Amino acid sequence: MTIEEYHQPSFLIKEDICRSNIRRMAEKARTSNLIFRPHFKTHQSLVVGDWFREEGVEAITVSSVKMARFFADGGWNDITIALPANILQLDEISKLASEIRLSLLFDMQDQAAFFAMNLKHEAGFFIKTDTGYNRSGVIPTDTDTINSILAEASGSNLTFKGFLTHSGHTYHANGRDEILAIHKHSGKILSNLKRKYLPGNPGIITSAGDTPSCSIAEEFEGFDEIRPGNFVFYDLMQWRLGSCSFEEIGTVVVCPVISVYPSRKEALLHGGAVHLSKESINTRDGKPVYGLVVPFSEGQWQAPEGDDYIVSLSQEHGIFRISSRWASGLKPGDLVAVIPVHSCLAADLASSCSIC
Amino acid sequence: MTIEEYHQPSFLIKEDICRSNIRRMAEKARTSNLIFRPHFKTHQSLVVGDWFREEGVEAITVSSVKMARFFADGGWNDITIALPANILQLDEISKLASEIRLSLLFDMQDQAAFFAMNLKHEAGFFIKTDTGYNRSGVIPTDTDTINSILAEASGSNLTFKGFLTHSGHTYHANGRDEILAIHKHSGKILSNLKRKYLPGNPGIITSAGDTPSCSIAEEFEGFDEIRPGNFVFYDLMQWRLGSCSFEEIGTVVVCPVISVYPSRKEALLHGGAVHLSKESINTRDGKPVYGLVVPFSEGQWQAPEGDDYIVSLSQEHGIFRISSRWASGLKPGDLVAVIPVHSCLAADLASSCSIC
Repeated sequence: MTIEEYHQPSFLIKEDICRSNIRRMAEKARTSNLIFRPHFKTHQSLVVGDWFREEGVEAITVSSVKMARFFADGGWNDITIALPANILQLDEISKLASEIRLSLLFDMQDQAAFFAMNLKHEAGFFIKTDTGYNRSGVIPTDTDTINSILAEASGSNLTFKGFLTHSGHTYHANGRDEILAIHKHSGKILSNLKRKYLPGNPGIITSAGDTPSCSIAEEFEGFDEIRPGNFVFYDLMQWRLGSCSFEEIGTVVVCPVISVYPSRKEALLHGGAVHLSKESINTRDGKPVYGLVVPFSEGQWQAPEGDDYIVSLSQEHGIFRISSRWASGLKPGDLVAVIPVHSCLAADLASSCSIC
Repeated sequence: MTIEEYHQPSFLIKEDICRSNIRRMAEKARTSNLIFRPHFKTHQSLVVGDWFREEGVEAITVSSVKMARFFADGGWNDITIALPANILQLDEISKLASEIRLSLLFDMQDQAAFFAMNLKHEAGFFIKTDTGYNRSGVIPTDTDTINSILAEASGSNLTFKGFLTHSGHTYHANGRDEILAIHKHSGKILSNLKRKYLPGNPGIITSAGDTPSCSIAEEFEGFDEIRPGNFVFYDLMQWRLGSCSFEEIGTVVVCPVISVYPSRKEALLHGGAVHLSKESINTRDGKPVYGLVVPFSEGQWQAPEGDDYIVSLSQEHGIFRISSRWASGLKPGDLVAVIPVHSCLAADLASSCSIC
């Protein structure tokens, strides 16, 4: 690959970093006796999927029926769809259940009743549990709902697999201690539920999956399975949270410099919301930024030279604040790399990617 | 079309509304003696492009070389690329210039020098002028840069077409009066520049393009051409700004309700950042929202029943606050329509769309 190939915004993956991220997480799961069921929504790629397979991964997580179909067609046959099941997708879910080992999520009696009645093939299900993120899931103390889901599923094609959570509130945590506290709290809630329901449901497990917890924690008490996804690439948000080092970030968007505006210490990149997404994080002064600009040369990106943040983003334009001495030397036609705030969304936006 | 087709998030366009939006803007341009060169980044669709053609549109605006190639291949042969020209894309730009009437944007001497030296076919160029948005463009008082661009282009394949701005700061304006003040100010700046440079450059024009100004203004003093894009669909942001009525919004994302959480007055949609984008606007209480949920039945969306806003958005999950009586009656498997905050980004995310 030569740098001449990058004439427009290009999503670039560094294979050795990603493979190392996968290996480290797989090893952590083995050491901790955890089932490793990585979330493939981050990369949505059969090529990257193969890197996981080479580390012994057989079971995966996705976040839509469409993604489950994509990976099932790509040879993956043990898939959990980690979004509560959409009853309108019965036909596609039934077809998947007939082909692979499929697990669904329920967090309402209605979903369990519907699939118990209508699903024509065997599938597993987890009870999605809200351990504090407040996105989806049954409140752990709401045993009426838990019992009603189990009652509906009883005697149907559905097999209860256990309790599952996504502690996404770790993304908003203030440092490692708070992330570990959330992680511990979720483990306690899920293991209490498991203990309560295990007698009537032998073999059930607990499952959790956020990248900050899985990256930082060394203890996984209360969990049987982990489902992190973002860790394969990491990104600016994870680096900021302390989930990874800069050297563990595995992807950037390579962008051309179009114009420079020395008088206002800003520069224009071809690289906008359709390449990076409008996901932002706040800098210390409370202003949103959309990516960090770092040097890119000979097909490789380098460590940041300073606070060269993208400060505004429209559809195709990205404006970054020139902060470092390096950035003040940039001129039209130079290439830079942008560390995306959220690699999952940048990857989803990429119609294609390069691997280096 | 039957509602049974919507089993997952689906980008839906109402043809009669969009055609009416196009007709109204084309008529306004005719009445005001303006060249109408609509921005096609909003829809990126040959089908929607044909609706423009039926209103007499022959000349268009795009925001990348890739989009220019797409529409050139689709039969459009008068295109302005409204992002300052990227010198790395010389080959693609040269090829386009050999096929169609192409105009580029320059806001630095370097770009003009490079294309004057290297472009093998004739193209027009505008001097991108910063009339206050502070995204890209030459500062209007910086006549040194303007003169240097013109000097570089002189005697080359490049023909000076005039001064162009995008007053994107209207998107952050506080009401119609402020939008009109920005519009008037931009017109004055561009017409002053035109008056100054017309003697040596006969035929040059002024061009502006934001949807809020073009929608609200009835006077276009100082402008010869308008390039609005978003108005074909409009969206929540434009409705909030006063650029359109609710009935003029031409697109939604249809989403299935997956779960409801009456205890916290929220519900879960399949519909996330990969369908709506993370573009947000703030409600009166300063909280960001990512879309407005409205009823959807018999293939048509309806007026909002209340403040049923999407309050959090992850990759595939959308959580909305149940505010109206209608929303409190929703159950899993129901379909709702989401008015996107920014239709250009939602359209870009849609791998396909339905037209009703």
